[in-house]
Amino acid sequence: MKVITFGEILLRLAAPGYTKLFQKDSLDSTFCGSEANVAVSLSIFGMDSSFVTKLPDNDVGYAAVNSMRYFGVDTSKIIYGNGRMGLYYLEKGASQRSSKVIYDREYSAISLAKRENFDWDKIFDGADWFHWTGINPALSDELALICEDACKAAKGMGLTVSCDLNYRGKLWSPKKARTVMEPFMKYVDICICNEEDAEKVLGIKAPDTDVESGELNNAGYVHTAEMIHSQYGCKFVAITLRKSFSASRNGWNAMLYDAEALESYFSREYNIQIVDRVGGGDSFAAGLIYAMMQKMECQDAIDFATAASCLKHTIEGDYNRTTVQDVQALLRSGGNGRVQR
Amino acid sequence: MKVITFGEILLRLAAPGYTKLFQKDSLDSTFCGSEANVAVSLSIFGMDSSFVTKLPDNDVGYAAVNSMRYFGVDTSKIIYGNGRMGLYYLEKGASQRSSKVIYDREYSAISLAKRENFDWDKIFDGADWFHWTGINPALSDELALICEDACKAAKGMGLTVSCDLNYRGKLWSPKKARTVMEPFMKYVDICICNEEDAEKVLGIKAPDTDVESGELNNAGYVHTAEMIHSQYGCKFVAITLRKSFSASRNGWNAMLYDAEALESYFSREYNIQIVDRVGGGDSFAAGLIYAMMQKMECQDAIDFATAASCLKHTIEGDYNRTTVQDVQALLRSGGNGRVQR
Amino acid sequence: MKVITFGEILLRLAAPGYTKLFQKDSLDSTFCGSEANVAVSLSIFGMDSSFVTKLPDNDVGYAAVNSMRYFGVDTSKIIYGNGRMGLYYLEKGASQRSSKVIYDREYSAISLAKRENFDWDKIFDGADWFHWTGINPALSDELALICEDACKAAKGMGLTVSCDLNYRGKLWSPKKARTVMEPFMKYVDICICNEEDAEKVLGIKAPDTDVESGELNNAGYVHTAEMIHSQYGCKFVAITLRKSFSASRNGWNAMLYDAEALESYFSREYNIQIVDRVGGGDSFAAGLIYAMMQKMECQDAIDFATAASCLKHTIEGDYNRTTVQDVQALLRSGGNGRVQR
Amino acid sequence: MKVITFGEILLRLAAPGYTKLFQKDSLDSTFCGSEANVAVSLSIFGMDSSFVTKLPDNDVGYAAVNSMRYFGVDTSKIIYGNGRMGLYYLEKGASQRSSKVIYDREYSAISLAKRENFDWDKIFDGADWFHWTGINPALSDELALICEDACKAAKGMGLTVSCDLNYRGKLWSPKKARTVMEPFMKYVDICICNEEDAEKVLGIKAPDTDVESGELNNAGYVHTAEMIHSQYGCKFVAITLRKSFSASRNGWNAMLYDAEALESYFSREYNIQIVDRVGGGDSFAAGLIYAMMQKMECQDAIDFATAASCLKHTIEGDYNRTTVQDVQALLRSGGNGRVQR
Amino acid sequence: MKVITFGEILLRLAAPGYTKLFQKDSLDSTFCGSEANVAVSLSIFGMDSSFVTKLPDNDVGYAAVNSMRYFGVDTSKIIYGNGRMGLYYLEKGASQRSSKVIYDREYSAISLAKRENFDWDKIFDGADWFHWTGINPALSDELALICEDACKAAKGMGLTVSCDLNYRGKLWSPKKARTVMEPFMKYVDICICNEEDAEKVLGIKAPDTDVESGELNNAGYVHTAEMIHSQYGCKFVAITLRKSFSASRNGWNAMLYDAEALESYFSREYNIQIVDRVGGGDSFAAGLIYAMMQKMECQDAIDFATAASCLKHTIEGDYNRTTVQDVQALLRSGGNGRVQR
Amino acid sequence: MKVITFGEILLRLAAPGYTKLFQKDSLDSTFCGSEANVAVSLSIFGMDSSFVTKLPDNDVGYAAVNSMRYFGVDTSKIIYGNGRMGLYYLEKGASQRSSKVIYDREYSAISLAKRENFDWDKIFDGADWFHWTGINPALSDELALICEDACKAAKGMGLTVSCDLNYRGKLWSPKKARTVMEPFMKYVDICICNEEDAEKVLGIKAPDTDVESGELNNAGYVHTAEMIHSQYGCKFVAITLRKSFSASRNGWNAMLYDAEALESYFSREYNIQIVDRVGGGDSFAAGLIYAMMQKMECQDAIDFATAASCLKHTIEGDYNRTTVQDVQALLRSGGNGRVQR
Repeated sequence: MKVITFGEILLRLAAPGYTKLFQKDSLDSTFCGSEANVAVSLSIFGMDSSFVTKLPDNDVGYAAVNSMRYFGVDTSKIIYGNGRMGLYYLEKGASQRSSKVIYDREYSAISLAKRENFDWDKIFDGADWFHWTGINPALSDELALICEDACKAAKGMGLTVSCDLNYRGKLWSPKKARTVMEPFMKYVDICICNEEDAEKVLGIKAPDTDVESGELNNAGYVHTAEMIHSQYGCKFVAITLRKSFSASRNGWNAMLYDAEALESYFSREYNIQIVDRVGGGDSFAAGLIYAMMQKMECQDAIDFATAASCLKHTIEGDYNRTTVQDVQALLRSGGNGRVQR
Repeated sequence: MKVITFGEILLRLAAPGYTKLFQKDSLDSTFCGSEANVAVSLSIFGMDSSFVTKLPDNDVGYAAVNSMRYFGVDTSKIIYGNGRMGLYYLEKGASQRSSKVIYDREYSAISLAKRENFDWDKIFDGADWFHWTGINPALSDELALICEDACKAAKGMGLTVSCDLNYRGKLWSPKKARTVMEPFMKYVDICICNEEDAEKVLGIKAPDTDVESGELNNAGYVHTAEMIHSQYGCKFVAITLRKSFSASRNGWNAMLYDAEALESYFSREYNIQIVDRVGGGDSFAAGLIYAMMQKMECQDAIDFATAASCLKHTIEGDYNRTTVQDVQALLRSGGNGRVQR
Repeated sequence: MKVITFGEILLRLAAPGYTKLFQKDSLDSTFCGSEANVAVSLSIFGMDSSFVTKLPDNDVGYAAVNSMRYFGVDTSKIIYGNGRMGLYYLEKGASQRSSKVIYDREYSAISLAKRENFDWDKIFDGADWFHWTGINPALSDELALICEDACKAAKGMGLTVSCDLNYRGKLWSPKKARTVMEPFMKYVDICICNEEDAEKVLGIKAPDTDVESGELNNAGYVHTAEMIHSQYGCKFVAITLRKSFSASRNGWNAMLYDAEALESYFSREYNIQIVDRVGGGDSFAAGLIYAMMQKMECQDAIDFATAASCLKHTIEGDYNRTTVQDVQALLRSGGNGRVQR
Repeated sequence: MKVITFGEILLRLAAPGYTKLFQKDSLDSTFCGSEANVAVSLSIFGMDSSFVTKLPDNDVGYAAVNSMRYFGVDTSKIIYGNGRMGLYYLEKGASQRSSKVIYDREYSAISLAKRENFDWDKIFDGADWFHWTGINPALSDELALICEDACKAAKGMGLTVSCDLNYRGKLWSPKKARTVMEPFMKYVDICICNEEDAEKVLGIKAPDTDVESGELNNAGYVHTAEMIHSQYGCKFVAITLRKSFSASRNGWNAMLYDAEALESYFSREYNIQIVDRVGGGDSFAAGLIYAMMQKMECQDAIDFATAASCLKHTIEGDYNRTTVQDVQALLRSGGNGRVQR
Repeated sequence: MKVITFGEILLRLAAPGYTKLFQKDSLDSTFCGSEANVAVSLSIFGMDSSFVTKLPDNDVGYAAVNSMRYFGVDTSKIIYGNGRMGLYYLEKGASQRSSKVIYDREYSAISLAKRENFDWDKIFDGADWFHWTGINPALSDELALICEDACKAAKGMGLTVSCDLNYRGKLWSPKKARTVMEPFMKYVDICICNEEDAEKVLGIKAPDTDVESGELNNAGYVHTAEMIHSQYGCKFVAITLRKSFSASRNGWNAMLYDAEALESYFSREYNIQIVDRVGGGDSFAAGLIYAMMQKMECQDAIDFATAASCLKHTIEGDYNRTTVQDVQALLRSGGNGRVQR
Repeated sequence: MKVITFGEILLRLAAPGYTKLFQKDSLDSTFCGSEANVAVSLSIFGMDSSFVTKLPDNDVGYAAVNSMRYFGVDTSKIIYGNGRMGLYYLEKGASQRSSKVIYDREYSAISLAKRENFDWDKIFDGADWFHWTGINPALSDELALICEDACKAAKGMGLTVSCDLNYRGKLWSPKKARTVMEPFMKYVDICICNEEDAEKVLGIKAPDTDVESGELNNAGYVHTAEMIHSQYGCKFVAITLRKSFSASRNGWNAMLYDAEALESYFSREYNIQIVDRVGGGDSFAAGLIYAMMQKMECQDAIDFATAASCLKHTIEGDYNRTTVQDVQALLRSGGNGRVQR
């Protein structure tokens, strides 16, 4: 099964451990990006995973490519050209102190990409699935058009299309997001989001939601999913539910809504002692895509995706270095963390 | 608003991470000291903060100065002379294992300082506030006299004087502490302490206090504050309340007593997953001084000071690398630790 | 009091911090091994502790020896010869992610040892206590015979013999373990195990035990101890009780059964925020051996042993760098983790 | 003596040790920039040194400021506004392998600065000296105008003006450089350059120069200096002479030409085992400015400047953490490197 | 152009920096192996490079694979099975102190490989070149047979065969080496060796050679090459010439003998300040194979190969992270190490 | 053969790599001290080596002891009591930049030792050799008396006494050194020094010596040795000869003068690329003591001692982690640094 992911790969410069930015005179440098994270996780799960982006033609760009080849991702469709490597500075939070992100992603190679850079018919040749996220069209108007091109081609060639709404308040406003994203939703078979995305990007808010507190009853989530289906026709809607007790501890579960069956499936909730929560949502998306490509039952799929992303929260870096076997072991053990020896 | 802080700056040699002392063959080297911590925090909060001490005239002393200039502290009033750099070894505890401190601060330059080294009229010229702590007079009898000189000059020049009692059992006995400190209390406008300080330095113990367990009811704290006011005339008494569940987790809140208004104000209690708790009390003092210099209402002041010191517990090193904006964000969010992006 | 410990010392190659194996390009290299851990802890407790093993005659072997001499262990009885240094790769788990161990201990020098390599009469000359574990006979059939030689000699010379059953599923099957170990139990005065060891090695299972969940009522543990005594004649049976809430948090307590007095003694339970749990069982064994060599009362002995091993869980590396004073401080404070200064 | 330096401060992201970029997953992060380097060195030498630039209003910008305050530089004249923090990636060379620099400094705050951002009359109030380099006007056309504004104001207010030509082939062409820089030379009292700068920026090439080999006879350097004086009127011309034997070993000396006295002064040549050569030229400029502000004789001045920059080559990072005492010690000892104890 | 390399990949555990083994408590962990090094270098040079080996089916084996995929090597032909990951401990020498290697490669998966594990017709399908080294047959008798199988298949399918004699005294004796290797030489088109290999493996010694001193005149090298050609029919013989002045400084050049043209070509000699010399010979082999696949003239080929391996000596780790552009830049500059900016 | 070494062990806090002190926020922490270095080296050479000192009774003191036990030194004669752990800060030089040492060793436990602390008859029981250095009596007047006590007891019990003059200008003046040391020289069988020690401590200066340049002809050294013998009766005089080309490169050789045979023996000179030169002289003393205890011929002894100390210069830390085998290998190879594999 071959899956194409399109989007950005960034350099992440993180303050070591729980130090403040520039408290130490080194930065942990890894590569990341919502879509790159999905592509890597799918490759680790054993899928034939290919990543499409545009990168600067220098050692920074090559290192980004190498970081994905390491996990077996096909990078042969990546193009090189003008623009810089987008990056962000990360300060990991602890307890009551929030993590801090400083973006420096303007003028990146991908944000300067042109429609003619991508020949989607060729890219999608032989592929089964196309994944993208709402971050791409937020980077430039041209990128929004490129996403539309890709979606059209994918649908035309019979691929399943999944999209993670992934709202980023530092990149665009809810109004702009909605204007751009709404027309694209008709191409999306599987819509992945959290309650904030649903509200900010699609304007769908369950009654009595309080985004800041992260509290929402199950009925509210089902309502949101139904609305997304009824308005845009998505066949499946997956919603992640994060309870942010502190920067060190989160509750995490998720729901999958099957529009055809009119059924909602909830995973168990994991109470997580966090190692690194960045990339948590992406690892969920990858887990869900894998599960659906494997034709798992809905309950199994949402359990798999949630367990995969639970494990991501315990792993340093954006990439979810978790195998199918690791996920299955967690599903079996329930997370008691016993040493195997 | 200009504030003068007088006291010691030490070299802190800490075992890396949660290792035991000398388990690894390097030591994390930062600078610290109860009063230096306050001066740094006040500078980060935007105050015109000046630090007064005596240091050895060598690269270790210069590095200490640089560590404060980094944060904008005015170090031009520091004097250099005989004596060594005081230091301490720190082993950070975890769970049931306590942190361990080994002092090596004897014969430090500041402990060998002479009264004639400091021209307080010149030092306090243009200043609004003077802060010192009970550690200084514990270092040498001469330093006690110097503290008295400073207090007298400060009062004479109309500065507000704050003092953190800061009892250290490894430096002096309760009896010596009380003999020395009691006569100085009349100069103190704002007395900062915890229940152990109050008992060991001033002999004031609320009924039914159990210092080891850290449990005390609110009435007990109010009683302690009232006693301090009635015996020494301090206008404000601030008491921090630490619940030590383990070396990794503490409860933390505080109370401010306004003697004129006869009112007590309690902050909320933070349940903290600790990164580094050394300097926690100093960060409270700095938060309180800032709040009072800003003429905050008492409830706002105690909330600000407690939130500032809560954040310190999540930061490596003694210095509280927290801005006013960070404190305000915590007061708004309540500490859910959500990433801002 | 002189104690001889016989067994293996291994090189432990651990991924740094909470990273996955080979995520970083260095490995933390320390020495370890169930029996080496006991010998080191006993030496730190002030016992005259001697370790017996066979090592490769190269710099890796010498470094292992040095790591024990550092703590004062007598290594003069160690022999050198053919075979490699056994090692294992360790990936430390966090939250729902389990720790992972990859053994690479085949063909180690000790596993290739011959009976004639060890002159037990000479080794035990002047000694009071002999400790070994069930890992040794699992390494080779010859090692099982060597253990038998040692047990016989020790009993003949009047030493107290303690054995930690220490079942390792990656080394042998329950069936093989039982066949080999049962005949040796008659030499054992003090049998140390957990409920899994008792079941896998001796086939003793309390009614209603669920090993995976780690839940067992106190009566079940007493029953297991009584069975071990009645079947093999051990005078004391100590059972550790781990509740694995997650890879980051464990409950930990233990029981000591005195067969002569027909009494069972339970320690308090520690709820531990884990730094490094490998070697936790060994630190318990060392604590118990020390306590019994010191002729502590049974309740004091099990309290000491459990507190010692509680502290081990907060220390990096297999060796329990905890002194008698540290254990006593924990017993006094109850584990509130307050800084002493 | 007060000196104003105007220019850029950048974030330098360097591969650790002698590794290739991204070979390790961390980058050493320090701040640098030709002009910032000069300002820091002058402050360490005891001058009243003030740095003027424009920075992004975020934690990266503040960290840059702190890195200069650490050394006592006055940063109160720095302005904050739109644009990012410029940065570059550095891979340190060794032996036959050259160091590699990848610039990512486009769209930096300083490059987007406007003329109206700077009130030069106010900035230069009370100052004695103004230093800038040829990198500034290479960053944007507006910056060239700003440099002109500054030069005019400085001359008008009677400051001495020094300029390091500092040609960077990755920023502009020789042709552009010459067009922009030539009109500014009339404001420059002290022109600092190497033979490549002289050729690329001013079109002045000594007969028989071979820039690549770095070989040039002394007469050639004198000729170049004379040409600069005769064409632009600079009172002093200082030329550094680097012999690049390999990335690990360089020969380094310099010449000072005194146009009034018609005399040339050559320093001794240092054969340097390089620790970090980036910032070598800037440390020479700072040494020369210091020496001239101290009214040293020409021979002493060129000796001081060359020794100061020799020491920079043995120090990690761009900043020359060398004191006047260090330079004097080298001038006395000749560089035998004996331990003082 | 597609090249198949067959051999071993090992885990290299190196003491950090210039420390002695186990002086620090971490080991730098990278992957290496004479043949893996060649495969990686060829992939970086842009060749279609595929590596064939047998690995343990665990996380250590997978990490080895990932380390090669990072550089684009095709690892799809690698098989997994019984046996461990071979490894060696490395202590890097300095000045008069030699580097030290402790092998722990017995019982590795590849050394336990069986002839039936490899289907050479399938492996070589579409390939142009086959490279192997004398280390393989030294690991086991079965591996010698496997090498023979591979050589026969390669020749039968028209591939060019290159072999690096790579004598290792810790793996086998000269006598055994010669017995095994001589019959295989007839399959070898390009024989790569140094003077020690030639003597120990083939018994060919130039008159007046002194292996220890590494001194040999050019005529001696030509003589050795002629002998190899005349005895075994190799079309090309490449000999590397290392002058070991100290562990920190080596002279390095090489010779290529073209048997058909009866011509010898010598590269220039590089005087190298060593960063890491392990893998130096392998980088030469890769450079030569690349050059010959690109049909370079003999002089260009030996220049390219020697420059490539010169650069390897300045790079940490066994893999030669050097591109064709890097080699060409060195050939142009001659190694003056000037920064490009 | 049993040797007793008496003196100080210090904590060495070194800036990492070639950074300036406090440039990084960690310090490499190892233990050292001229006499401790000798004791450790002798133990590694296989001697029965015992170290006598006084240490603070805390974790810093215990860590110092452990660092010596690691190498097998007998530490059972060490006493504990009042006073702190002496320490020094070290900044390693490079090229023209000298290493910098900042002592903080006042009030150390050993400097506060009393004569009655040491029972020399008991300490020397069964010993063959006593080694001390001129640093001890420089620390306190009482220590000078203690050294005299020790020397008298040693001579009375028939031990060979060696002394390294070890002049430290930061501890005492030449005048004081001479007054104290001269009376003790009569107890010294083997006097170890360099030309600076001879001049500063004993007032013996060869004609035409220039200490700063380190240049002295061989005749001058012989003259110095003869003078030491004739004035104080030492049977052997060993003089080390350091040529300090730079902080990175030293020439190093030595001479042994046999007073009875009236012969002088010179070692070869090593041209050393320095890794860490601190402890170089101590490693020479240990090598010489070992060689003489082994009854080597004078030429062999001076060759062994010089080779041993040559290797020390290539090893991080004060301790010479060099075995007899390592020294012999260097003597065989001459220092070409070839990898053994």
